[in-house]
Amino acid sequence: MRTTVITSEANALVKRWRQLAQNPRACKKAGLTLAEGEHLAQAALAAGAEVRAVALRQDGASAEAVKLARAVCEALGAPLFVVANPLYEAASPVERGAGVMLEIAVPQPGLPASPVDADALYLDGVQDAGNAGTLIRTAVAAGVRWIAASPATAGLWSPKVMRAAMGAHFGARIVENVPPGRLPELFAGRRLAADARGGEDLWRARGWERGSTVWLMGAEGPGLSEAALAVAEARYLVDIEPACESLNVAAAAAVCLFEQRRRRRAA
Amino acid sequence: MRTTVITSEANALVKRWRQLAQNPRACKKAGLTLAEGEHLAQAALAAGAEVRAVALRQDGASAEAVKLARAVCEALGAPLFVVANPLYEAASPVERGAGVMLEIAVPQPGLPASPVDADALYLDGVQDAGNAGTLIRTAVAAGVRWIAASPATAGLWSPKVMRAAMGAHFGARIVENVPPGRLPELFAGRRLAADARGGEDLWRARGWERGSTVWLMGAEGPGLSEAALAVAEARYLVDIEPACESLNVAAAAAVCLFEQRRRRRAA
Repeated sequence: MRTTVITSEANALVKRWRQLAQNPRACKKAGLTLAEGEHLAQAALAAGAEVRAVALRQDGASAEAVKLARAVCEALGAPLFVVANPLYEAASPVERGAGVMLEIAVPQPGLPASPVDADALYLDGVQDAGNAGTLIRTAVAAGVRWIAASPATAGLWSPKVMRAAMGAHFGARIVENVPPGRLPELFAGRRLAADARGGEDLWRARGWERGSTVWLMGAEGPGLSEAALAVAEARYLVDIEPACESLNVAAAAAVCLFEQRRRRRAA
Repeated sequence: MRTTVITSEANALVKRWRQLAQNPRACKKAGLTLAEGEHLAQAALAAGAEVRAVALRQDGASAEAVKLARAVCEALGAPLFVVANPLYEAASPVERGAGVMLEIAVPQPGLPASPVDADALYLDGVQDAGNAGTLIRTAVAAGVRWIAASPATAGLWSPKVMRAAMGAHFGARIVENVPPGRLPELFAGRRLAADARGGEDLWRARGWERGSTVWLMGAEGPGLSEAALAVAEARYLVDIEPACESLNVAAAAAVCLFEQRRRRRAA
């Protein structure tokens, strides 16, 4: 295993990690992301992700972190960097992390030539990284593996989104920068809008769970854009207490996607 | 309306707000919290919250923020403070907020003398403020108004939790520092554990939605504590894809509490 010790803050790798950790746009531009922590390292290892480098904090990495760092390097052929603590902390996207961090090449899935007949979730302008990550995690847990995102949505491979999704990225197929108008070219499923402002009652409406679906979820506050509503084939509303204005977008998605799963299992 | 302009960083109120914004423990100790933004101010106004002071950023507060600040002062008899921008920014729990902030006395509900026969949600060691706030919002939206929390759970009235809950606090009855063993004294409902490690299938199991329920939700990672599992009368599992380890706790609560709502509405 190639092992390098990094002790200088002028090191080019450390500089790059610092940028990736702090700036989601840098991730997009470089096609790279950082995954800190044992859980994400485990998930990347299990998925055989394209790991470019493994960083290990010089002092105080957990025994599990050390073990995982070595396992990832051996299994995926990545070089190991042992990084002096202050440099590691400055480059890590997580404060007081576990001490193991992977630099990963973001998968660039080619867009399907003909519409995919599979379930999908479409994020329309979801800018909060925590929400975006939870949405990916919830979708994959509900059996929905295709995630598409509008240009205004947070960069889905940023370290913050990675962290909130807890490894679900590796089980998902993620396509970004998809304007709503392009959804019909990409997915064959029926486009269903979750809309707090109106629509059919999710629980009373029948049959929407049959065949593939593409659930459209909007941002906190504005909800779905006009462009997204324009391509929706139906709108559904989750029944909430009248005193409440709306659900958090990730909670709304959990209700819709697991109602879909429940109905299909019951069928 | 009493209006005071604050321009000195030695001002005692500004010092206090800075503490409340940065330190959830300071909120607990003082029995006070901060609510920044138009949405929270609107919710506090509608609920008739105990507002002790209203702060308005001197320059660049939105017209809506100014209107709300005046309305809260008039309706709830709170004094208005116009705060120089750098002091406001330092004291606000939100970066680049709307420019209106309320200091609110945290309600201290007396514990019920005999068990309450109402639905409740119990947070067992949920430390992440964003998750805790989303859980409160989701519960209130699902019609579950009592929220109880273990001593290890995040301070539920901290500004970060307030922000994530988007005003749901004002529609909830919140009791903190409740060890699991005290739940039977407080709530008459059946105690149902959401447990990713096992239990009955939530969708297949019948009748659990009848009568009042107390749903027990644990922290990310460790899940429910032994003490919480010991008082649970039944354990339920949400069916997720085998490749996934677990749901985010707020997503799991959304599935359980809205399945409860769906079943009751169908009955």
